[in-house]
Amino acid sequence: MSEPSARPPASHPVPAGPGKGTRRYPRPALSRLGLSPGKRTRLKRLLYDYGPGGGTLLVLPIDQGLEHGPVDFFENPDALDPQYQYDLAKEGRFSAIALHIGLAEKFFHEYAGEVPLILKLNGKTGIPSDAQSFSPLTGSVEDAVRLGADAVGYTVYVGSPSQDRDFRQFSEVRQEAHRFGMPLIVWAYPRGEAVSKKGGKESLYAIDYAARVALELGADVVKVNYPVRSEKDADSPAPYNTLQLAPFEAFRKVVESAGRALVLVSGGEKVGDAELLDKVRASMDAGATGIIFGRNLWQRPRTDALRITRELHAIFREYAAPLA
Amino acid sequence: MSEPSARPPASHPVPAGPGKGTRRYPRPALSRLGLSPGKRTRLKRLLYDYGPGGGTLLVLPIDQGLEHGPVDFFENPDALDPQYQYDLAKEGRFSAIALHIGLAEKFFHEYAGEVPLILKLNGKTGIPSDAQSFSPLTGSVEDAVRLGADAVGYTVYVGSPSQDRDFRQFSEVRQEAHRFGMPLIVWAYPRGEAVSKKGGKESLYAIDYAARVALELGADVVKVNYPVRSEKDADSPAPYNTLQLAPFEAFRKVVESAGRALVLVSGGEKVGDAELLDKVRASMDAGATGIIFGRNLWQRPRTDALRITRELHAIFREYAAPLA
Amino acid sequence: MSEPSARPPASHPVPAGPGKGTRRYPRPALSRLGLSPGKRTRLKRLLYDYGPGGGTLLVLPIDQGLEHGPVDFFENPDALDPQYQYDLAKEGRFSAIALHIGLAEKFFHEYAGEVPLILKLNGKTGIPSDAQSFSPLTGSVEDAVRLGADAVGYTVYVGSPSQDRDFRQFSEVRQEAHRFGMPLIVWAYPRGEAVSKKGGKESLYAIDYAARVALELGADVVKVNYPVRSEKDADSPAPYNTLQLAPFEAFRKVVESAGRALVLVSGGEKVGDAELLDKVRASMDAGATGIIFGRNLWQRPRTDALRITRELHAIFREYAAPLA
Amino acid sequence: MSEPSARPPASHPVPAGPGKGTRRYPRPALSRLGLSPGKRTRLKRLLYDYGPGGGTLLVLPIDQGLEHGPVDFFENPDALDPQYQYDLAKEGRFSAIALHIGLAEKFFHEYAGEVPLILKLNGKTGIPSDAQSFSPLTGSVEDAVRLGADAVGYTVYVGSPSQDRDFRQFSEVRQEAHRFGMPLIVWAYPRGEAVSKKGGKESLYAIDYAARVALELGADVVKVNYPVRSEKDADSPAPYNTLQLAPFEAFRKVVESAGRALVLVSGGEKVGDAELLDKVRASMDAGATGIIFGRNLWQRPRTDALRITRELHAIFREYAAPLA
Amino acid sequence: MSEPSARPPASHPVPAGPGKGTRRYPRPALSRLGLSPGKRTRLKRLLYDYGPGGGTLLVLPIDQGLEHGPVDFFENPDALDPQYQYDLAKEGRFSAIALHIGLAEKFFHEYAGEVPLILKLNGKTGIPSDAQSFSPLTGSVEDAVRLGADAVGYTVYVGSPSQDRDFRQFSEVRQEAHRFGMPLIVWAYPRGEAVSKKGGKESLYAIDYAARVALELGADVVKVNYPVRSEKDADSPAPYNTLQLAPFEAFRKVVESAGRALVLVSGGEKVGDAELLDKVRASMDAGATGIIFGRNLWQRPRTDALRITRELHAIFREYAAPLA
Repeated sequence: MSEPSARPPASHPVPAGPGKGTRRYPRPALSRLGLSPGKRTRLKRLLYDYGPGGGTLLVLPIDQGLEHGPVDFFENPDALDPQYQYDLAKEGRFSAIALHIGLAEKFFHEYAGEVPLILKLNGKTGIPSDAQSFSPLTGSVEDAVRLGADAVGYTVYVGSPSQDRDFRQFSEVRQEAHRFGMPLIVWAYPRGEAVSKKGGKESLYAIDYAARVALELGADVVKVNYPVRSEKDADSPAPYNTLQLAPFEAFRKVVESAGRALVLVSGGEKVGDAELLDKVRASMDAGATGIIFGRNLWQRPRTDALRITRELHAIFREYAAPLA
Repeated sequence: MSEPSARPPASHPVPAGPGKGTRRYPRPALSRLGLSPGKRTRLKRLLYDYGPGGGTLLVLPIDQGLEHGPVDFFENPDALDPQYQYDLAKEGRFSAIALHIGLAEKFFHEYAGEVPLILKLNGKTGIPSDAQSFSPLTGSVEDAVRLGADAVGYTVYVGSPSQDRDFRQFSEVRQEAHRFGMPLIVWAYPRGEAVSKKGGKESLYAIDYAARVALELGADVVKVNYPVRSEKDADSPAPYNTLQLAPFEAFRKVVESAGRALVLVSGGEKVGDAELLDKVRASMDAGATGIIFGRNLWQRPRTDALRITRELHAIFREYAAPLA
Repeated sequence: MSEPSARPPASHPVPAGPGKGTRRYPRPALSRLGLSPGKRTRLKRLLYDYGPGGGTLLVLPIDQGLEHGPVDFFENPDALDPQYQYDLAKEGRFSAIALHIGLAEKFFHEYAGEVPLILKLNGKTGIPSDAQSFSPLTGSVEDAVRLGADAVGYTVYVGSPSQDRDFRQFSEVRQEAHRFGMPLIVWAYPRGEAVSKKGGKESLYAIDYAARVALELGADVVKVNYPVRSEKDADSPAPYNTLQLAPFEAFRKVVESAGRALVLVSGGEKVGDAELLDKVRASMDAGATGIIFGRNLWQRPRTDALRITRELHAIFREYAAPLA
Repeated sequence: MSEPSARPPASHPVPAGPGKGTRRYPRPALSRLGLSPGKRTRLKRLLYDYGPGGGTLLVLPIDQGLEHGPVDFFENPDALDPQYQYDLAKEGRFSAIALHIGLAEKFFHEYAGEVPLILKLNGKTGIPSDAQSFSPLTGSVEDAVRLGADAVGYTVYVGSPSQDRDFRQFSEVRQEAHRFGMPLIVWAYPRGEAVSKKGGKESLYAIDYAARVALELGADVVKVNYPVRSEKDADSPAPYNTLQLAPFEAFRKVVESAGRALVLVSGGEKVGDAELLDKVRASMDAGATGIIFGRNLWQRPRTDALRITRELHAIFREYAAPLA
Repeated sequence: MSEPSARPPASHPVPAGPGKGTRRYPRPALSRLGLSPGKRTRLKRLLYDYGPGGGTLLVLPIDQGLEHGPVDFFENPDALDPQYQYDLAKEGRFSAIALHIGLAEKFFHEYAGEVPLILKLNGKTGIPSDAQSFSPLTGSVEDAVRLGADAVGYTVYVGSPSQDRDFRQFSEVRQEAHRFGMPLIVWAYPRGEAVSKKGGKESLYAIDYAARVALELGADVVKVNYPVRSEKDADSPAPYNTLQLAPFEAFRKVVESAGRALVLVSGGEKVGDAELLDKVRASMDAGATGIIFGRNLWQRPRTDALRITRELHAIFREYAAPLA
């Protein structure tokens, strides 16, 4: 957590945005998170010993084959073979690779100990409607333990009509994660018909709420999207319907709502280099701990993917801090 | 997995189809699959010690009495008695017979040690609507262990609105299969109302997605149908709606999406001899590990079934390779 | 199983029906059923040591009070007291009495060791609609063991939209029955809205399918209804919609679909003596192992019930065979 | 139990011994034993439906190969093959055969349902010293249930310094037997160094005490030896050291001490025909429910064994009584 | 079991010994052993599909490093590396290799599916005194299942004062082996101070007793030593103390005591070629199913070990029989 004295009221203007002398907000210190020794051991490795280090996270996710189908691999056919992402994670010195049990069982044995593993524990296909989104378990915390993973991931669909089953399922996973000292990363996604009516899944209202839900339910790390302003914000409940926050302010607000859950920013669909790197800087300035970019990296040919990864490392070095 | 250098981009044309100098794609090597000793022991036996051997699989399924009802046995009334299929599997030297617990309990004791057993663990009748397809458990991995089975089978209905229950049920089966070192074969079937709207269960879109889902969820072997081109492909998500892949290319794409899950091709409804054997060759050329043909074999009179089985053995011999 | 050579093709005419020189089909031999010692011990007793013996079964069910309510006892008010059926089973030397846990707990202690017990493990009231029929557990296999029962009964509603819950529940019961060596009798009842649309629950299509499902799921004995021809058969899937099988042929087909599961014929609603006895003969000729008649027996006054039971014994004596 | 009014004080003279107009004492009625339905069902079958019936027990034990070693089979080498005893039990219509798990697993499947099984649950070799006799478990009540056994047997070494472990082990078996409704037969054997000092294992003191211990610990049936008078009786505690009971009186006293545990008399070493048959009559007169004779039967050649068995049946017929 | 008519009385002379027109006794047929489908499947593979086949067993044990220590590897230093024995088992086409969990976990993955595995489940060091021999568990049946083993091995020290702990531990292993359908091989070793006083562990008395104990406790296969005549036989209980059986007769007696447990002969310390091969022939003539020779094989240099293995295969071919 940022120090109380250093934290402006969440709804007030903050200093200028990225590239223009933006204020930098501190990240929560590991020692303040109430982590059990096991969670702390594993999280410290991801934050300091692998990847860019210095308390940051650079995570490569490859769960899109399940969530979206092979369609995401047309852009760069090499990426259809999970070995591509594993090689990228290894050569690009990522903090971890995040994926489902099948890709762990069949490929991780060749990278065990070289690329830290985040086992994603629930998922679904994108084929049926999103109206009642729910992501069933595909693996267990015990799977993660036996594979030597350093964290587990779980998608909560905040606002879905299926939240009753979701919260309960999450609670069981959280308890297992506690039992085994396994850090728990929540993919906090606003989703479902009610979210659509209240400004949509990219609205500050929805993302801000999702970040807080992750904190309340017990996330150690929360993965969020960068909020996007749109006309649909007018459908959000007050005062979100009239808030006029700049993107950086809005994201900073989300980071604050996440409290002592470390924040990872999603990459989303592939964008241009400049936009990508700006987004990273802004996120880190706002107090994020790192990024989890998939398509923006592995939809590139290998040489290009490694080049941009080197640039990301360079940025992360600016945000490095000693263990605290 | 095929070597990176040997793998053409999935959306590019591949060399000519079966019978016309088709290129042969390699199958994943057993040693690359990250298998535990138990899974490897059992799978190696199916691939090399029984059936045609040489790393191939020739499987005889007899679960149609449950899935379709006795209607499938009118064509060849002898086939109503499961002993018919057991005898065929034994005399025809199949790699394994695949069936549900009842047919295992009542008949397998007379073939124990002579015909390897794949115990199918879930199934359903074809009586209710397919809109929300879900296949409940009919047996357990422990049943398979105590019967001396060498693998278990599980049907995942990819895209069904019931995927939440299905994935969770599958995850439990997968964990038991891991615990006991039992290879897990996934019947990856696109199904449900959303699939019907996006090109149908025989579309490349649906089958390609299903193969990837099986890989991500933890299949060791995946059973898929050969995609069929139709006008309904126009309803598939881009770019599938405009892809113009020849059948062989399309199937090769599915095999690639399956990654390190070995691929078995379904037989489906009974077809003529030439078509059947062409399909087998094309499948094997594309990197499939084998076939699982039921009605196309046991709907024939015994003499004819054994004759075509001999022809299948002859084809498989062409694709035999040493243990790797 | 009947010998292949002795089995006519299922869709061909078979010799004349009962009373007219009907062909007699053999019953499956106990030694071919793959039974564990415990299942074999208990089943052998029911088939040979109690009741008419000689490998036949004469079972008295009294679960109608749960399934239909007390309405079934108006015909013969004495039958409302379960002692009536117990006394009938004892004096009439039935192979077993079949009922739910409550009637076992409260009455069986007075007949323990004198009337073999089949504990029915699931049931439901007839009050809600049948559209989604599902029969929840009312007892356990362990209940049956501790009571000294010789078999357990379970109703599967084949074709019901609730088959997912039903199959899984059945699978758990089946595994417990295996663990304890307890024979498992399946009440195989086609039921539900889809069955109604495809010819109805008394159609050959539905009953034939139900018999096969029981075999595939692991029944040791299957209780089926005698199929009834009606105009609704035209709604059954091909070729059932055009099959013109005589009643005896139709029932023989069902027995064949049951394979190595022994067949019990349900009595259904009360009918006249001649019709009843003809039905028994025809069933036994077709290869059934016995009958399970409730209302047709205990809706009669005691003297009459015992008289008809003696006639049943006389018929069963004709079908007696040595242990094989 | 004999009626209070009909029961003479235990230490008083009773009417004349066997062959001389001996008084006949009644056996406990099944209905007075407080048996659960499962125990009652199983015990009723052994007492009335198999063997000589009429409420008696004629049991063939074959656990001597474990307890004494193959030495007991020299007398009649055919008896080394357990099939010999099984065949004898079947042809001689014994109430049950009693043996350990190995002889059950390997042979019982060929006699399932034809020869009732008593599974002996503990045993030991005769090789080490008897001073601290203790008989560890060789099987479980659940083994007995799954095999279709009708009772279990357990040896308690009454008076052994190891009684602490023995009682506790027995208590666990007894609770399982209760849970599954399985009758529990106790081999009540005085044994150990302290017994030797107090008159020895054949003394009335020791056997009388053992019978009472079996009753107190929860035996449904107790197997005892016939007490033998000797000079060592003088070492027994008072008043046993001065009791001058005739053999019949002494045995009657043991039966009374067993209370509502039915009594089985051991055969012990092989003796002559007349002595054997006298012992049976005396035991039955004294209120025993039956006998458990091994070496006295199967150490004879088959023809002779069957002949003496027929004589035993004849005697048992004299003691037959209706179910009460 | 040998047919009664083919079996001479155990104490009578039998025809001449090996090489001199010895009578050949049959081995128990697989179909008579009451095996569950899982046990039958696995045992059938060892007996017919791997090794010399034809219903024989040629097993290579390498548990001496635990039982005796590295001392056994001085003779042939190459044998210190377990890969030596694995390679020998593979190249020499043994029916199976038998070893403890550590040698399985570290080496078997490179031979999975090529060399069948027998997992030894208990063991001890040879350092403390043998007076109270007891062999604690080193692995579990579930370990064996997950590794893909085809059988498990367990040492029973027959006659040891620790038999109480041993029998109970064995009973638990046996029940797990039953649950998982895993064949159970008993190393039946007479041991302990009482054995030493009654003729010693190599006496016919002790080995004959041990074989019977294995049968009674539930062994599927029993490993025994060939009895050795010595002056100490005089200390054995009667009639063993005066028996004058030739070696072949004595071993035949042991095989008969093992009943329906298949017999494996131990190799023991290294002997000359002629003696070794004579012992194999005599064992097989007497009805043994195979041999389990360790030091006699792997204490030889590789070329010599393979040469003698080829000679063993040649002998086994003479005893091959079809599946029955």
